[in-house]
Amino acid sequence: MSLVIIGSLAFDTIETPLGRREGVVGGSATYCALAASYFTRPRLVGVVGEDFPASVIDLFQQRKIDLTGLERRKGRTFHWEGRYGRDPNQRLTIKLELNVFQDFRPVLPRKYRLAKNIFLANIDPDLQEEILRQVTQPRLVAMDTIDHWIKTKREALLRVLKKVNIFFANDEEAKLLTEEINLIRAGRQIQKFGPELVIIKKGEHGALVFGSDWIFGVLAHPCEEVIDPTGAGDCFAGGFLGYLDRSRQLNSRVVKRAAVYGSVMASLAIEDFGIERLKALDSETIKKRFLEFKRLVTFS
Amino acid sequence: MSLVIIGSLAFDTIETPLGRREGVVGGSATYCALAASYFTRPRLVGVVGEDFPASVIDLFQQRKIDLTGLERRKGRTFHWEGRYGRDPNQRLTIKLELNVFQDFRPVLPRKYRLAKNIFLANIDPDLQEEILRQVTQPRLVAMDTIDHWIKTKREALLRVLKKVNIFFANDEEAKLLTEEINLIRAGRQIQKFGPELVIIKKGEHGALVFGSDWIFGVLAHPCEEVIDPTGAGDCFAGGFLGYLDRSRQLNSRVVKRAAVYGSVMASLAIEDFGIERLKALDSETIKKRFLEFKRLVTFS
Repeated sequence: MSLVIIGSLAFDTIETPLGRREGVVGGSATYCALAASYFTRPRLVGVVGEDFPASVIDLFQQRKIDLTGLERRKGRTFHWEGRYGRDPNQRLTIKLELNVFQDFRPVLPRKYRLAKNIFLANIDPDLQEEILRQVTQPRLVAMDTIDHWIKTKREALLRVLKKVNIFFANDEEAKLLTEEINLIRAGRQIQKFGPELVIIKKGEHGALVFGSDWIFGVLAHPCEEVIDPTGAGDCFAGGFLGYLDRSRQLNSRVVKRAAVYGSVMASLAIEDFGIERLKALDSETIKKRFLEFKRLVTFS
Repeated sequence: MSLVIIGSLAFDTIETPLGRREGVVGGSATYCALAASYFTRPRLVGVVGEDFPASVIDLFQQRKIDLTGLERRKGRTFHWEGRYGRDPNQRLTIKLELNVFQDFRPVLPRKYRLAKNIFLANIDPDLQEEILRQVTQPRLVAMDTIDHWIKTKREALLRVLKKVNIFFANDEEAKLLTEEINLIRAGRQIQKFGPELVIIKKGEHGALVFGSDWIFGVLAHPCEEVIDPTGAGDCFAGGFLGYLDRSRQLNSRVVKRAAVYGSVMASLAIEDFGIERLKALDSETIKKRFLEFKRLVTFS
């Protein structure tokens, strides 16, 4: 199968109660593609500047990520700086330098246009729509967004929502989008906007997956020390979509397993700063964490 | 077996976004005993005034709740008035009239002193300690508390915690008690205070059960419309302890099932105002909800 991931590649400066890292590689597409690479061979669409490290390009290649859609431009890579408080769900953006990302107008390479599965990570909904015009016969289109677009580009966002199959949001975004305080109603409401599958991510409380006539709840791995929550949502999407891309079927059993793998990848990513933990995972570690998730919720 | 429940019986005036009820019967012991009565024959210890309705006494008897420990005094029954906002986890106490509850000094009837399982619902920790002096050889002692006692009687509370096996708290209370923001650390920390089993209730996000070397997560039933959240925590305790009281064994399998039954009873109780929903349940409805919980989390 084929999974195309469109999103940001960035340098992040991150401050958490456990430390500070300056200019480590991040970005939604980076996290998502690395997480997905443990399940399938993702194709990346994004833009980096001249300062983007060759070592990370090497890492992508080593993880068999297709970089045909990765544009290299003159100038500097997108830079984000943020700070997390003691509550890892609360983060403050301190600085945002779009740099080469400012004029990012993604053009899908010809061979990507036939891709079966597409992930529109968080970018301007107008760009997300533009990308959808370039794909010819997708099996699944998934999208993510952030509160910024819900607040400033609601109409455009609702247009894209109509055209996608899967929508990822965190609980605050879902509430903001639907003006509902109850997450079950919020999830059901978003389904009415278009997507058949809605995934509401709840940080330490796990995630809820809304299907046609079922809801599936997946807990978060009990984690005593979140080192760096950056990218957790993108890793969830990467694990989820990577698993779906590998699967031929799309029934509720497969979707539920995919959600658990999403939660698994997110729980691993937050155990170290930036993409450190994602660099050197193996199927053994992922399988072990999957079984831990199962033990966490199984009763007989 | 035998489960003794010590707590409040009250009149509640409740306002939620869906309506208002004046002076409906409530109280921690009322909710807990009714929920537990679907699993075992609870014994109630509490105090009511002359105004407590005979119909509810009849209901207790019909549910086979032992009332030997229920004191009837001159004066008025405890009255609580509260209001819930759109977020059912946030409640505001508007009025509190202790009335006959003011001088409540629980004395266990002789036949209760040999009880195997004891639940100290939320009352003054000094009273909880006094009760523990009256029981001779309990198998399990469980307790609940509220933020008020954590703030004003921390020392007394920690003394009781040392002597109990099971502690129920909601997430805010657990954080307040341990000064931890991470719930996993908070749960583990409370275990160090004494109880082998700690149950942290998270409202719509379910509950976490901390055992010796395991954690179990139980989700909340996906509920689109919470009619009245009053008593949900006490019903959780009632279902949990009622199930444990009925079980001869106390291994992790039994405790996990008990937690699911706790969540089941809480999810049923909030579907109507006050104790309405608890009046006329049957084992069929409870079993059905139990299976719904299982479906909600099962993946293969």
